[in-house]
Amino acid sequence: MDKIDVAVLGATGAVGQRFVQLLENHPWFRVSEVIGSSRSAGQTYSDAVNWVLDGGPPEAVSALQVKALDDELSSPLVFSALPKEAADPREFELAAAGHVVCTNASANRMVEDVPLLLPEANADHVGLIDVQRARRGWTTGALVANSNCTSMPVVMAMAPLRRFGIRKIHMVSEQAISGAGYPGVASLDILDNVIPYVSGDEGKMETEPRKMLGALKNEAIEWLDVVAGATCTRVPVIDGHLVNISVELAEQPSLDEIIAAWESFVGPDPVPQLPSAPAQPVYYLPQIDRPQIRRDRNAGQGMSTSIGRLRECPILGYKFAALSHNTIRGAAGCSILNAELLAVKGYLGSFEPAYSSVAVL
Amino acid sequence: MDKIDVAVLGATGAVGQRFVQLLENHPWFRVSEVIGSSRSAGQTYSDAVNWVLDGGPPEAVSALQVKALDDELSSPLVFSALPKEAADPREFELAAAGHVVCTNASANRMVEDVPLLLPEANADHVGLIDVQRARRGWTTGALVANSNCTSMPVVMAMAPLRRFGIRKIHMVSEQAISGAGYPGVASLDILDNVIPYVSGDEGKMETEPRKMLGALKNEAIEWLDVVAGATCTRVPVIDGHLVNISVELAEQPSLDEIIAAWESFVGPDPVPQLPSAPAQPVYYLPQIDRPQIRRDRNAGQGMSTSIGRLRECPILGYKFAALSHNTIRGAAGCSILNAELLAVKGYLGSFEPAYSSVAVL
Amino acid sequence: MDKIDVAVLGATGAVGQRFVQLLENHPWFRVSEVIGSSRSAGQTYSDAVNWVLDGGPPEAVSALQVKALDDELSSPLVFSALPKEAADPREFELAAAGHVVCTNASANRMVEDVPLLLPEANADHVGLIDVQRARRGWTTGALVANSNCTSMPVVMAMAPLRRFGIRKIHMVSEQAISGAGYPGVASLDILDNVIPYVSGDEGKMETEPRKMLGALKNEAIEWLDVVAGATCTRVPVIDGHLVNISVELAEQPSLDEIIAAWESFVGPDPVPQLPSAPAQPVYYLPQIDRPQIRRDRNAGQGMSTSIGRLRECPILGYKFAALSHNTIRGAAGCSILNAELLAVKGYLGSFEPAYSSVAVL
Amino acid sequence: MDKIDVAVLGATGAVGQRFVQLLENHPWFRVSEVIGSSRSAGQTYSDAVNWVLDGGPPEAVSALQVKALDDELSSPLVFSALPKEAADPREFELAAAGHVVCTNASANRMVEDVPLLLPEANADHVGLIDVQRARRGWTTGALVANSNCTSMPVVMAMAPLRRFGIRKIHMVSEQAISGAGYPGVASLDILDNVIPYVSGDEGKMETEPRKMLGALKNEAIEWLDVVAGATCTRVPVIDGHLVNISVELAEQPSLDEIIAAWESFVGPDPVPQLPSAPAQPVYYLPQIDRPQIRRDRNAGQGMSTSIGRLRECPILGYKFAALSHNTIRGAAGCSILNAELLAVKGYLGSFEPAYSSVAVL
Repeated sequence: MDKIDVAVLGATGAVGQRFVQLLENHPWFRVSEVIGSSRSAGQTYSDAVNWVLDGGPPEAVSALQVKALDDELSSPLVFSALPKEAADPREFELAAAGHVVCTNASANRMVEDVPLLLPEANADHVGLIDVQRARRGWTTGALVANSNCTSMPVVMAMAPLRRFGIRKIHMVSEQAISGAGYPGVASLDILDNVIPYVSGDEGKMETEPRKMLGALKNEAIEWLDVVAGATCTRVPVIDGHLVNISVELAEQPSLDEIIAAWESFVGPDPVPQLPSAPAQPVYYLPQIDRPQIRRDRNAGQGMSTSIGRLRECPILGYKFAALSHNTIRGAAGCSILNAELLAVKGYLGSFEPAYSSVAVL
Repeated sequence: MDKIDVAVLGATGAVGQRFVQLLENHPWFRVSEVIGSSRSAGQTYSDAVNWVLDGGPPEAVSALQVKALDDELSSPLVFSALPKEAADPREFELAAAGHVVCTNASANRMVEDVPLLLPEANADHVGLIDVQRARRGWTTGALVANSNCTSMPVVMAMAPLRRFGIRKIHMVSEQAISGAGYPGVASLDILDNVIPYVSGDEGKMETEPRKMLGALKNEAIEWLDVVAGATCTRVPVIDGHLVNISVELAEQPSLDEIIAAWESFVGPDPVPQLPSAPAQPVYYLPQIDRPQIRRDRNAGQGMSTSIGRLRECPILGYKFAALSHNTIRGAAGCSILNAELLAVKGYLGSFEPAYSSVAVL
Repeated sequence: MDKIDVAVLGATGAVGQRFVQLLENHPWFRVSEVIGSSRSAGQTYSDAVNWVLDGGPPEAVSALQVKALDDELSSPLVFSALPKEAADPREFELAAAGHVVCTNASANRMVEDVPLLLPEANADHVGLIDVQRARRGWTTGALVANSNCTSMPVVMAMAPLRRFGIRKIHMVSEQAISGAGYPGVASLDILDNVIPYVSGDEGKMETEPRKMLGALKNEAIEWLDVVAGATCTRVPVIDGHLVNISVELAEQPSLDEIIAAWESFVGPDPVPQLPSAPAQPVYYLPQIDRPQIRRDRNAGQGMSTSIGRLRECPILGYKFAALSHNTIRGAAGCSILNAELLAVKGYLGSFEPAYSSVAVL
Repeated sequence: MDKIDVAVLGATGAVGQRFVQLLENHPWFRVSEVIGSSRSAGQTYSDAVNWVLDGGPPEAVSALQVKALDDELSSPLVFSALPKEAADPREFELAAAGHVVCTNASANRMVEDVPLLLPEANADHVGLIDVQRARRGWTTGALVANSNCTSMPVVMAMAPLRRFGIRKIHMVSEQAISGAGYPGVASLDILDNVIPYVSGDEGKMETEPRKMLGALKNEAIEWLDVVAGATCTRVPVIDGHLVNISVELAEQPSLDEIIAAWESFVGPDPVPQLPSAPAQPVYYLPQIDRPQIRRDRNAGQGMSTSIGRLRECPILGYKFAALSHNTIRGAAGCSILNAELLAVKGYLGSFEPAYSSVAVL
């Protein structure tokens, strides 16, 4: 099978590097264009990038010449790791020009006709692309977003609990430094320290999950009607966001029923068969001191969410801790899974993924 | 003035070392006896101790010979940094033998006639000593405890809010490794990691504050009637426990009224005049990213509580973060302040502290 | 092909866990017996182990029942992660009983007829097994050791330089906490700290490389005649030992000649074809700030040594930094590679590895 | 006594903050002017500064209005924490304008008539100021520098050993992140990591100590004739630089003689009587695992150097570890001590410090 060419916007930044790393050896996608700042444009990727992940960049991408943000792109599929300000107009321009854009940027997440996808939780929201195309007069282009990296484990933990009626969610996060990009958090600010505030994240955690857990009705997302309150803190760990969650449910399931809901959760077809989908999206860890950020962030190659410590909360009814890898499942990895879903659903034009194991609707 | 001799139980452990360090140059107290394990007994303190604080032990104490736990003690005042199991019978034995014991151990905190003191918050609970002595037939002995190191900042933050009617307290802590003593947390368990569980602490946080914020009535403490729920996590910082608190109040004070309540809080006379009392027990930090564990744990020589991020909570009404130094104000420093209060209140026998600046009741 | 059964001594410790982890899916070896302390014996491995690596133990091994150290073993091949004291007599007993023992313990490394193997550097030392067997009257048993985890990168860096005549080696290490096992280094001792001493390691670094870089002559190892001096320090990183090396050579090669010696180094046949052998044993990193412990420790799946910063030393002539993963290539991974070499060389009895790509001598 | 007014250049940076912190309550000096970037100029210090040390800035300085770098200054004494580029011309301009400038910047350290002062080691180098003034036609102005923060512990350790004839010094440093200023080292670059390179520091360590340990002869510093080689690495600690030093001496003193040389070292009069001089400039720690960065960096309020692990080096004869606080004794604290020496020596014009306890030469 021929792979489809993809472009990575903001390819030299921390999340951009994660896109490049995760796309090495991808069965369907091949990085053909890397887009950086005007300062990087014209250099080879290996010269332009200050690689902050382990090891070094993949050889195939190293040799690519970095393009500027306003250069024309030839790849039908575009992944965006742009900072918010740059993302805002450019992503819509590219979608209007016929590209399918899967973005990690926050700029357009709350736009009404932009799906905020976490495939296991809301694969049906891809239907919003039809609305988007019709409304905007696009035929091949589309813009799809993934959520904030701290909202992500919350949505993954909550999706299987929708059946019990979610009323209130109280969240306190402990977030890794990689969530702030590079150079991001100064080491003098975080070594032997905790910062009780992460700029912008609390608001996102109080809104994004409501959209993501909502339902596509009448060509729009009807937000889930819950009260959500978040506190975000930064801790001295490299990768992995842990969220301490208390939740009030309409029904009163037993703890075992909740655990069963998580462990049996796989998301709707064809999500479990997508190349980047983890074998098990949610693991419940029975040990009393898990999930731990360093030890559990790489579960399912960083694509699974680890949950533990489910117990009664004297105030809201239930509480537990949920953990996800913030730059894999919480960012680049989620966008890639989103693109895989779009491919199977036929939103990538004539591209037909080598994918026969499941009946596509 | 002559100083009063004090003994330190568990003097070679991490909290015991903090007692020894804080008592160097104390105006009223002089460390005359150090008590260690049977393995340490007979050695000089400097030989027996593996000093884990900065620098080394004070010279005067270094030369003392370590006594065994069942050796007879001559000091009228005893500070206990014993582990729970050792503390249980021995502290009562010493009190029965006429010593005033100020303990950091958790063993006897919930015993009905043992005051759980945080002087600014509940100095009047010392009255329970009269009950204790009468009930047990003691004349000079007494047993007084300080709270768990994570309960401590909660009580300090809540005491000034009692006037608004406290109904519910939701707590998520981020705790330093020194809270687990030495050797305590293995470095392989905590470097680049967060552990979402601290053995025993959640239960303490859900009960101790209720006793401490309660009222002494009819020779007993009437616990404060609140619903308290706690999650305790361990983070890779040396010292300092941060607690993310959401609270429901009966009244609806403005944020400014709450800040004013904290900033004007000094505790009842004679607490503010005690040698170890901080100039200001509670600091409200207006910066959006404070309190930070490393930067604020030493406020008031580690005796003040730093609070920040007061804002509305969509679920319980108010939320904020509170931070205290866990081995100073949350442990040894609090016991020393407790002893100072006892001294001024006349519970240390004929010892009269050099203390004239305040009218003692 | 049928796999050969292997036993892991000290399987519940930190290095034992690494053996179990690395042997999952090994093409030739299958973990069939796990041996622990008397306290663990009789439990399943998953119950007995406090898994300190990421994730959890492999399922197949989890179900094995832990054996006691003096239980009889049925596996022909034994990996030892025993502490020094336990290793001393037991490893020889097992070898005498016919087992091939590949050990990470330091106890018997300096025994004259025990090869201290790092295959790329001294594969020919396996010939010492013939001497060992003849001298001790063994037919199928053998005892083979790998080096100390900090000696290891030094030997890997020096082996390609033997051609230039090595005269003096000055070493200053910065070592990860995992080198001390579990619980090992207390977090209070290492967070925000450097400890300028690692018990026992300096002596090993000054002797082991001399044996390893020596020559097998007349049925004995003739040590390399160099002066070696080491300083070992502990730093707050999880895995990876970095050694700052200054070296005096008899010849005066150019820096480029030294780099070429490293980059072309693969070790003698059949080493490069062994399943655990890295594609390139030594990588020279041209960036001025590499190798970095976190970013380079996993090079070659943790089996490669990364070298950087080669430059002139005003005192000894040349200096550079070398880095290896201490619990993979510096411990369990090396023992496994050693066993693979023994298998191909015919020291594992009738076991014939699926291995045809190279002419075995 | 009246205090003398001082200005701090670069007052909002990390080292500038340390100047402001250390000068609070100084007996002779009072911060009257704070100079920042053009962006900060005009704001109050508390508004302009992002205080990165613990707690917050002193109240008296908080209210000062920040001046721009080219504003005229009225303070006779100026401390400079400027970055190298800004320091180069401005420090000479200020000295030419009559100010005594004590700088931490590296820009002018190697200028022939600028003393590079570490008072205990080379107080007599202040005589170079007379040369400087004569040569440049200055009457009241002067420019005096302190050394690089990693050179500093080397010079302090070596000064007492000059009597034995220093021939070669081999140095490997482990340096704190605060040495890079703020924001300085990105947390993604240093958490769970060691960087084997610190830009610029190796060259400084190979030259500055030779000037500092040299002799003032014929109106110039005659550098010490030693061969010095340095490797600098960055480790994840907040403050404190540790240097692993091997040294070759002309004589062969016993280890005890070397220790005695360190412990008896106080520097020439009047240095020991200066307000910021530590009671003991060099402490030799007999424990095998000291000095440790976190536990010993604050010895002597951060003004003492801690040495340990003296032993034979198979290559150069002797080796040991030396540690100093890099932003106190290695930067701001040293400049302040330098200024105190200048004051007593009469280089601060008519200012007469309250200082009678020693006969000034």
